[in-house]
Amino acid sequence: MQKITLQISCNDQQGIIASVTGCIQSYQGNIMYINQHVDQIENRFNMEWNTYSPKDKQKMALFVSKYDHCLYDLLGRYHSGELNIKIPFIISNHNDLKHIANRFEIPFYYIPITKDNKTKAEELQLELLEKYNIDFIVLARYMQIISTQLISKFKNRIINIYHSFLPAFTGAKPYHSAFKRGVKIIGATSHYVTEYLDEGPIIEQDIVRVSHIHTISDLILKGRDLEKIVLSRAIKLHLEKKAMVHDNKTIIFS
Amino acid sequence: MQKITLQISCNDQQGIIASVTGCIQSYQGNIMYINQHVDQIENRFNMEWNTYSPKDKQKMALFVSKYDHCLYDLLGRYHSGELNIKIPFIISNHNDLKHIANRFEIPFYYIPITKDNKTKAEELQLELLEKYNIDFIVLARYMQIISTQLISKFKNRIINIYHSFLPAFTGAKPYHSAFKRGVKIIGATSHYVTEYLDEGPIIEQDIVRVSHIHTISDLILKGRDLEKIVLSRAIKLHLEKKAMVHDNKTIIFS
Amino acid sequence: MQKITLQISCNDQQGIIASVTGCIQSYQGNIMYINQHVDQIENRFNMEWNTYSPKDKQKMALFVSKYDHCLYDLLGRYHSGELNIKIPFIISNHNDLKHIANRFEIPFYYIPITKDNKTKAEELQLELLEKYNIDFIVLARYMQIISTQLISKFKNRIINIYHSFLPAFTGAKPYHSAFKRGVKIIGATSHYVTEYLDEGPIIEQDIVRVSHIHTISDLILKGRDLEKIVLSRAIKLHLEKKAMVHDNKTIIFS
Amino acid sequence: MQKITLQISCNDQQGIIASVTGCIQSYQGNIMYINQHVDQIENRFNMEWNTYSPKDKQKMALFVSKYDHCLYDLLGRYHSGELNIKIPFIISNHNDLKHIANRFEIPFYYIPITKDNKTKAEELQLELLEKYNIDFIVLARYMQIISTQLISKFKNRIINIYHSFLPAFTGAKPYHSAFKRGVKIIGATSHYVTEYLDEGPIIEQDIVRVSHIHTISDLILKGRDLEKIVLSRAIKLHLEKKAMVHDNKTIIFS
Repeated sequence: MQKITLQISCNDQQGIIASVTGCIQSYQGNIMYINQHVDQIENRFNMEWNTYSPKDKQKMALFVSKYDHCLYDLLGRYHSGELNIKIPFIISNHNDLKHIANRFEIPFYYIPITKDNKTKAEELQLELLEKYNIDFIVLARYMQIISTQLISKFKNRIINIYHSFLPAFTGAKPYHSAFKRGVKIIGATSHYVTEYLDEGPIIEQDIVRVSHIHTISDLILKGRDLEKIVLSRAIKLHLEKKAMVHDNKTIIFS
Repeated sequence: MQKITLQISCNDQQGIIASVTGCIQSYQGNIMYINQHVDQIENRFNMEWNTYSPKDKQKMALFVSKYDHCLYDLLGRYHSGELNIKIPFIISNHNDLKHIANRFEIPFYYIPITKDNKTKAEELQLELLEKYNIDFIVLARYMQIISTQLISKFKNRIINIYHSFLPAFTGAKPYHSAFKRGVKIIGATSHYVTEYLDEGPIIEQDIVRVSHIHTISDLILKGRDLEKIVLSRAIKLHLEKKAMVHDNKTIIFS
Repeated sequence: MQKITLQISCNDQQGIIASVTGCIQSYQGNIMYINQHVDQIENRFNMEWNTYSPKDKQKMALFVSKYDHCLYDLLGRYHSGELNIKIPFIISNHNDLKHIANRFEIPFYYIPITKDNKTKAEELQLELLEKYNIDFIVLARYMQIISTQLISKFKNRIINIYHSFLPAFTGAKPYHSAFKRGVKIIGATSHYVTEYLDEGPIIEQDIVRVSHIHTISDLILKGRDLEKIVLSRAIKLHLEKKAMVHDNKTIIFS
Repeated sequence: MQKITLQISCNDQQGIIASVTGCIQSYQGNIMYINQHVDQIENRFNMEWNTYSPKDKQKMALFVSKYDHCLYDLLGRYHSGELNIKIPFIISNHNDLKHIANRFEIPFYYIPITKDNKTKAEELQLELLEKYNIDFIVLARYMQIISTQLISKFKNRIINIYHSFLPAFTGAKPYHSAFKRGVKIIGATSHYVTEYLDEGPIIEQDIVRVSHIHTISDLILKGRDLEKIVLSRAIKLHLEKKAMVHDNKTIIFS
């Protein structure tokens, strides 16, 4: 038996499910799982189809900077076969994590970014993304703003991990802000990247309790674990076509 | 627009969804939410249908003993209109909570249970349940074992709250056992009552963290909050036909 | 054996614990639980002492508006003896919840608030608070801003419940904002009231998962449970002198 | 300034804290954090002292079998400097994970265990543990029962990760049992190893929600993340002397 995932988004109207499922039946298909969401605010949008079979190995590009925890975590999952993907390369604006890429035998492209070379650097990135036929991009604590051009080429296909419980603490140093505010819970958020910084559709969030005894370093350490778990969950949802974007929100079929 | 919930369980075969949704369409119905679960281990069972409209107010009987927290919580929700039900009466084997029933103006039937009068007591219970046309029963920390006869008359319609994270700590005093074992998390479990004590299909569970500083009394206090929240969630799932029993497990559509 | 809670806050220096515990020993006292927190950023502030014995029943004033869930919850806990307090009265700017106060036999003062009578209304409130020797105030979804005068009279003794995971969604309708943003988790926050709206020291927070299938009404319903649990936890921490305010944050000894 | 952790356990009596803190003061020490727990059931036991300075790098031995997720996670943390330890070697009864040890350049000892060679195998293990002066052992899904001899030599110094929410599902395949029982939450438990299988003092537990849509494979996958996070938290608590064993329970100072 071959398993296929069919993802459809279209304007709500009578008879959609009947005709789609009727069509599946006519091919002797059996539905193992069906889930539908009707957005109650009426929206006109064209029908979009996506089919996905687990045999297709998607190609994921990894962008990193200096933080290593998400990188170690993703490469561990990758090597153990937990993620049904290929990672053709890692791009970084720093050389700090090259040794990890080497350890896991993945090509590492050091593309530094300065005020002056930003356009040139992005061209290099785009070349690599096209050359390797990349399906989606993961920003594993990549500390650079992605250009509008790249975002539009990879619409709803760039996944970021943000180190706070969005929309709280969108500023520069979320853990410092959380410490200062004295919150009792910190969080992490994985979202698709849009042109509006930190405002893209949220795929997954999770939290952990903290208390007055925790210093900023403690929050950062606890956050490392949150970030890597939340990011990997978001990647899996994306991979398995269980995350669908509509109207700057995600519909999660799981 | 009238909202109707249609709950079907039957043997999996090609074309079920197509034909059911085709039928809905033929009546100009529009599907707002559809969810299907295919049990992967093949089971033969006959199709069962249930329709439910929010206009139908179900009648819920409350069984209590001496603990008051779930009772206060449910009656508060009831009076505030949060639960779309009628509570025609409360049954108890003790008189301790009568004052609460009075406060909320709900008939209270004191039916004591001893070794000798058990059969007679259950007859009284059954009479009341039939007289008031009760749809389902909630055991809000009712400290008596329900007879097989009553269970079979209200199959999958008796909801219990158990004060541990089942299947852990099924013995007499779960909080004492949890304390003794030194667990770092305690839980509560709401389940349908079957003839096998504490082994019915689980509807909802939740947990809370505890530590070495907490005494047994602290666990009991924390547990009170867990129990009332978990029980009320289970009742709502049952009420809205979002809990379906299959093979001693629940399928929760939410 | 008599149990006493001793709460001290002072400037950190060598020998504090040695001399305080030495003093306790000289009175043949035995320490059952000690907990200390040193704020790493040096702050000069005078030593403050508080002792507390469970025999002292604190007097709590309840302020409400139109939402009833926290009120039902607190009065249920109060009547069941879960809270070691007295509630001499309830104040509300609306008459909607008077019937609940009556049901629980607690005096209900209807003090409507308009633009013109605000000062007069607060005088009435203060009179009541003084007449009944109120120890602390709980705003159980009281939808009015408290005056600076009242706040300064009850410094760190007014507890509010806010219906979001602060500092996220501080605007008018947090659940609507959470729905619009498409968050996967919503929260509630209990904090001491200061002159800066929604920015007082956080006592307790908790969260619950939500998904795209939940409407705004669903979020509000789930939020009701969060709010009442979080508020009651904060009240207990305050009551048992386990919440100490320092530098707009709380130190929670539990 | 030099930071030192002082861990004391002894019989409760008047004046302990006064005299210990007096002694610290006499050496011009300043207490940054103090926490005490009095076990309410009186127990006679001798005073035990432990001091710990972050400068001491503890030596941790890793025991694994075939599951790689905890191993990848721990080695990632180790290489990134998150854990203040040395890992002199990895022991395994299978050769499957040798390639990971190689990748991270850690000596890997393959010590197969059969019914016949069990005593001999343990002698080899003990030799290695003694040769490298190992401080504590981590069983990262090591699928063998540890001998009483080894346990007594490393009392409260062998940390195991168990793949269920103990004491639930102690049998052979916890995820299968959890699936069969239809629980709504699964968990993982890290505990010190004692002679009683799965009954040692619990250091840390955590949980994740599951539903009817999850297969056994889904539970196992979700469990992998739980196991690695819970195990790493337990290791950190042990390392920082924040876990103290008393009467088959842990006291966690954090």
